[in-house]
Amino acid sequence: MTQDTAGFMPPYRLLMGAGPSNVHPRVLQAMASSLVGHLDPNFLAVMDDVRSLLRYVFRTENPVTLPISGTGTAGMEAAMVNIIEPGDTFVVAINGYFGQRLGEIAERSGANVIAVEHEMGKAVDAERVREALAGAGKVKAVGVVHAETSTGAATSIKEIADVAHEAGALLVVDAVTSLGGVELHVDEWGVDVCYSCTQKCIGAPPGLAPLTLSPRAVETLQSRTTKVRSFYLDLTELSSYWDRRAYHHTAPISMIYALREALRLIAEEGVEARWERHIRNGESLRAGLHAMGLNVVADPEVQLPSLTAVHAPEEIDEAQARRYLLDRHNIELSGGLGALAGKAWRIGLMGHNSTGPNVLTVLGALEEAIGEQGYETQAGAGVAAAQRVLRGID
Amino acid sequence: MTQDTAGFMPPYRLLMGAGPSNVHPRVLQAMASSLVGHLDPNFLAVMDDVRSLLRYVFRTENPVTLPISGTGTAGMEAAMVNIIEPGDTFVVAINGYFGQRLGEIAERSGANVIAVEHEMGKAVDAERVREALAGAGKVKAVGVVHAETSTGAATSIKEIADVAHEAGALLVVDAVTSLGGVELHVDEWGVDVCYSCTQKCIGAPPGLAPLTLSPRAVETLQSRTTKVRSFYLDLTELSSYWDRRAYHHTAPISMIYALREALRLIAEEGVEARWERHIRNGESLRAGLHAMGLNVVADPEVQLPSLTAVHAPEEIDEAQARRYLLDRHNIELSGGLGALAGKAWRIGLMGHNSTGPNVLTVLGALEEAIGEQGYETQAGAGVAAAQRVLRGID
Repeated sequence: MTQDTAGFMPPYRLLMGAGPSNVHPRVLQAMASSLVGHLDPNFLAVMDDVRSLLRYVFRTENPVTLPISGTGTAGMEAAMVNIIEPGDTFVVAINGYFGQRLGEIAERSGANVIAVEHEMGKAVDAERVREALAGAGKVKAVGVVHAETSTGAATSIKEIADVAHEAGALLVVDAVTSLGGVELHVDEWGVDVCYSCTQKCIGAPPGLAPLTLSPRAVETLQSRTTKVRSFYLDLTELSSYWDRRAYHHTAPISMIYALREALRLIAEEGVEARWERHIRNGESLRAGLHAMGLNVVADPEVQLPSLTAVHAPEEIDEAQARRYLLDRHNIELSGGLGALAGKAWRIGLMGHNSTGPNVLTVLGALEEAIGEQGYETQAGAGVAAAQRVLRGID
Repeated sequence: MTQDTAGFMPPYRLLMGAGPSNVHPRVLQAMASSLVGHLDPNFLAVMDDVRSLLRYVFRTENPVTLPISGTGTAGMEAAMVNIIEPGDTFVVAINGYFGQRLGEIAERSGANVIAVEHEMGKAVDAERVREALAGAGKVKAVGVVHAETSTGAATSIKEIADVAHEAGALLVVDAVTSLGGVELHVDEWGVDVCYSCTQKCIGAPPGLAPLTLSPRAVETLQSRTTKVRSFYLDLTELSSYWDRRAYHHTAPISMIYALREALRLIAEEGVEARWERHIRNGESLRAGLHAMGLNVVADPEVQLPSLTAVHAPEEIDEAQARRYLLDRHNIELSGGLGALAGKAWRIGLMGHNSTGPNVLTVLGALEEAIGEQGYETQAGAGVAAAQRVLRGID
């Protein structure tokens, strides 16, 4: 033995950042189940459960609904590389870091990318997308982020779907920070390609990217004249594994066990009840932040329930405050991303972690952390304001 | 709740096929550990351990050594999409299903692919690769599968590395069915890009693809004139996450916990001792198969220790025999792949599962399964022959 690494004892963290979030013990337990083969009849039944449960959570009847064997970014890439053929035009609405990334990945997939830039913290404006489409010639697809993880802003999808379809384009929606926690209706809204991740509102560990394709998107795949540039993410090949069990790659068995259990927990709660829970706890958090004199990044009317970005007061070193929370209280918040790096915190209330007690914990601990740097709030004001919302008084 | 899926109780299977193989309980336990954030100082230390342990197992000092967040096929694709720029020539030696796949993925990555076809079950012949290179003009890289999972044939890598380097090309090696169980020396042999998976000889669940790049391969990446077509698999971006902790994607935390524990088990055993163990058990298995009158696919002198492909006797329905083993005894074997589909079994003795008792179990059960179909062997002859090898008598 040439290595000297110690036995494994990770600390317990309360994960209140942008993900991963903590998962229910049943999910960890499922993941530790003994392995079966990826073509085992028992595993094929697990795959069927996962597809059916994913359709429930996506609110869709799409036959092609499956988890990609990679994280959310792999889902984004799978969407782009399958829909885009080199030279296709792709219109992407950008209102934060992940819209930017979607454009970048479309470009690498060979698209001619037209970016419709929005201010950070605002929702995407369907009118501006319509204008861009009007001058763009033939457009293959429009891309938009439902829940922008970098700012906490939600965008209304239905109108953008209509705008895209009027122009004969598909609509691609990034639901990384919404699926399973924020209202989303793939079929009713007319979304053609929707992808997400497992470690946020779904409540499983990171490692898979649920994805669904409308019949119109499937037709687009079938009428491609060039091969998909990625074999690993080729959705035609992947569908044939999920439908007809044709070997494509060895599915990440344990992760799929975990996803199945996380989805079962969603079905037991009911997805609508889950959306309500996320709304209530998000409102409570923001009431508390407001009472502490802190300013939220997103416009209030488009604020996401699952993730809140909040400006750090100027005199505060935001990284030092996060480090304090981690070292003293084992609480993780995320820092700002992109233009907000070093200037904001991102607080997640996602999946299993979206609870009233967690709201109070994070507010109390944040008050302490910024108090340590001399930013004094009225003691307990944040917690008290949050409690009033949780108790239905405000 | 609209779903009615039952609680999760997967059967216990003895996984003696082409992977996944069973994992040590410590690995399952690590995977069920509570999550930390992907930028948590505690997780960064875990990442450092994984890289250092991977270098130990790959037998390399390569700084760029990391697990890709996808299965073995993602590792193959990462190798190709980073090394190849559109129009580059790639020479691939094909002696089975996975060499074929490597060529397919190179083509999708934009390569002009020259295939050097070999008979199934034979090793790749360095001389034939040299001839192909002589007539090929400027070649960017040569690709070869170290351990062909479809046939059980091993190829000597050192000579092919020399041939590639003489021609000014990089050598890409698929070590999916060898890493951690079959002798492999990335640095000593001069391998430039080597990738593998976690679910075979490494002894972790499927979901990650360990990969290492020589300094020469890193230079090739740095001198690219086009962007890597995949953002998710862009090794320059990935290295900057693994080196400098710049956010790229959310690492699959639990899978990396599992990989760390599996690699620690390898280090505790010692990788050379592990190679020896795989050789002894593989020999024992084949002595047993031989005594049962069954014929192995690969040439004896190039037979892999970790995986044995064996022809099913003509009168036997191989799928029925596998189903019998699964239903009666919870033992999984794999069927043939590609040209061997329906005609062969593949028996894995990989990682944690490469044990003497498992050899005896699989031989005894296989004797019973083919006996059920009327193929009679001398009772217990397979087990007895295997035992003699295990006890050092033969």
